[in-house]
Amino acid sequence: MHLKELGELKLIKLIRKLSLTTFNPQIKVGIGDDCSVFNNGIVVTTDAYLEDIHFVKDYFSYRNIGKRAVCATLSDIAAMAAEPIAIFISALLPKDLKEKYLIDLYAGIKTIAKMFRTQIAGGDLVNYPKLGLILTAIGKAKHPKLRSQVKAGDYLYLTGYCGISETGRLALKFQLPQKEFMVAIKRHLTPIPRIYEALKLKKFIRGLIDTSDGLSTDCYHLATESQVKLKIFYEKLPIHPETFKLQKLLAQSNKDLIFNLALNSGEDYELLFSSPNDNLPKTIGNVKLTCIGKAERGRGVYLIKNNKEQPLTPKGYDHFSYSNKSFSSELNLF
Amino acid sequence: MHLKELGELKLIKLIRKLSLTTFNPQIKVGIGDDCSVFNNGIVVTTDAYLEDIHFVKDYFSYRNIGKRAVCATLSDIAAMAAEPIAIFISALLPKDLKEKYLIDLYAGIKTIAKMFRTQIAGGDLVNYPKLGLILTAIGKAKHPKLRSQVKAGDYLYLTGYCGISETGRLALKFQLPQKEFMVAIKRHLTPIPRIYEALKLKKFIRGLIDTSDGLSTDCYHLATESQVKLKIFYEKLPIHPETFKLQKLLAQSNKDLIFNLALNSGEDYELLFSSPNDNLPKTIGNVKLTCIGKAERGRGVYLIKNNKEQPLTPKGYDHFSYSNKSFSSELNLF
Repeated sequence: MHLKELGELKLIKLIRKLSLTTFNPQIKVGIGDDCSVFNNGIVVTTDAYLEDIHFVKDYFSYRNIGKRAVCATLSDIAAMAAEPIAIFISALLPKDLKEKYLIDLYAGIKTIAKMFRTQIAGGDLVNYPKLGLILTAIGKAKHPKLRSQVKAGDYLYLTGYCGISETGRLALKFQLPQKEFMVAIKRHLTPIPRIYEALKLKKFIRGLIDTSDGLSTDCYHLATESQVKLKIFYEKLPIHPETFKLQKLLAQSNKDLIFNLALNSGEDYELLFSSPNDNLPKTIGNVKLTCIGKAERGRGVYLIKNNKEQPLTPKGYDHFSYSNKSFSSELNLF
Repeated sequence: MHLKELGELKLIKLIRKLSLTTFNPQIKVGIGDDCSVFNNGIVVTTDAYLEDIHFVKDYFSYRNIGKRAVCATLSDIAAMAAEPIAIFISALLPKDLKEKYLIDLYAGIKTIAKMFRTQIAGGDLVNYPKLGLILTAIGKAKHPKLRSQVKAGDYLYLTGYCGISETGRLALKFQLPQKEFMVAIKRHLTPIPRIYEALKLKKFIRGLIDTSDGLSTDCYHLATESQVKLKIFYEKLPIHPETFKLQKLLAQSNKDLIFNLALNSGEDYELLFSSPNDNLPKTIGNVKLTCIGKAERGRGVYLIKNNKEQPLTPKGYDHFSYSNKSFSSELNLF
């Protein structure tokens, strides 16, 4: 059996099983959440960001690459409603990289780090043929919010828009007029993590995850870890006007484009959380907040569309499977 | 200017400068030591371990690759005289890797993690053409030992042997009879970190580093960070009989081989530390302990050989420079 036949979800299960026999009493939550949690409230996450896997240099400047990597990693700290403290950077650097590009890369890293008072506190440098950043972020919270804390009866909320990052990526890829896709492109290039929003909302939050793999997969994680049933109301999903514009320009005849963008495209880095409160504000700061579903007793994720309930299978980005290598190739559209 | 022209020491200085403007009050020691240190005594290190850069699959089994990566990373925790708590693993995995090899890899990781009661507490999986492990280790110490704590008048100690790992690597590379190089090969394949030795010795230790880059470079780090002069007594360096054997077999006429192995070859992962005490035991557990030098007022590293004092320039492994790409190519011997 090869890894590509296993697929990512099974692979994670396997790794989790292999790791389970190791133990230290100072760890409260190990593998399985956005961060691990130490007894003293320290939370830790690690994230790889590699050329031609996670980004292409075609439309990412070095500064953007640096910014993006830190945004994505700190989003896991936001997903615990924690405050970031420090990041550690393993940088894979081609030896013929120009010094000025390295300075740009670190300028991007610094911009986001400073925005969240996060210290670049260490790292490792490796001469490698392709550029890559592997980041570890460390934060702290008195009561970190977990994926496993959704309770039956909770309401499910989402910040921002679903499918906005993939909208931006496709607009860039197909060289659509950039000024028509300003919001989407900005979210794709620099997905500012929802740290401050999570800290403001934390008193209302029970279960929490960030949307990095696609809404269907992220809901699956929440439902599985919390052992509840999640119902998603399709008509309530916050879809940005630029996503509708994309459909018009790219696939007028394909109504599934919106559906797939909203439910199965990744890297939005929004907060997806449950709350016992059904009356949260419609915005938090200047970020939209939408109630998109409910948690009930039971198992699995279900989509309510045209008043019909249907199972929603996790179809977000899978790093290992062939049949679902990426959202775009799955659609066979582009 | 390209990175290869800068060289690693200058590159580290540049990155340090670029990172210095970021700040969080919970960080006590940032970039520049083996680990970063938080106010609460948490220490953090990150280390990349990549195919064809740090290891070749020719003589490393998957199990060995896993063991080796954890050993090297935990050695940085030993270099703070701290106790490890957890490791986080970003694994770059080719999608056609067989599941059983992944299980072997993790079995190796687990073996060392369990030896030091360290939990595999999180990570990230990426489908990547070449195998790689990027590890972050987190530990704790009441009083972490720093590179900057050597004082003039201190004695300099080294655990184990210098040049032993490179001896093992060369024995494997040139397919010399393995039973003649058992100690060296074992140290090269599985450099068990000196965690327990550091914890036993910590009451005697002032400045501390682990020998990963080669003794000359590691001494340079200690001297620079502590702002002292270090004198190394060449005749006192602990050189293993297998290293002499290697010289006999490979380069009878080249007397510099021993010199270069002892001073400029890396990855021994031994403790190099200073102590005000000139009378430490000759072994700690079953690991040799040798006084190899002294710290004085002044700057720089000097070698005392045949009663003559000469400057010792850092010539250990440089990941970026052309002229000093690796120990072996520098020697032009192999």
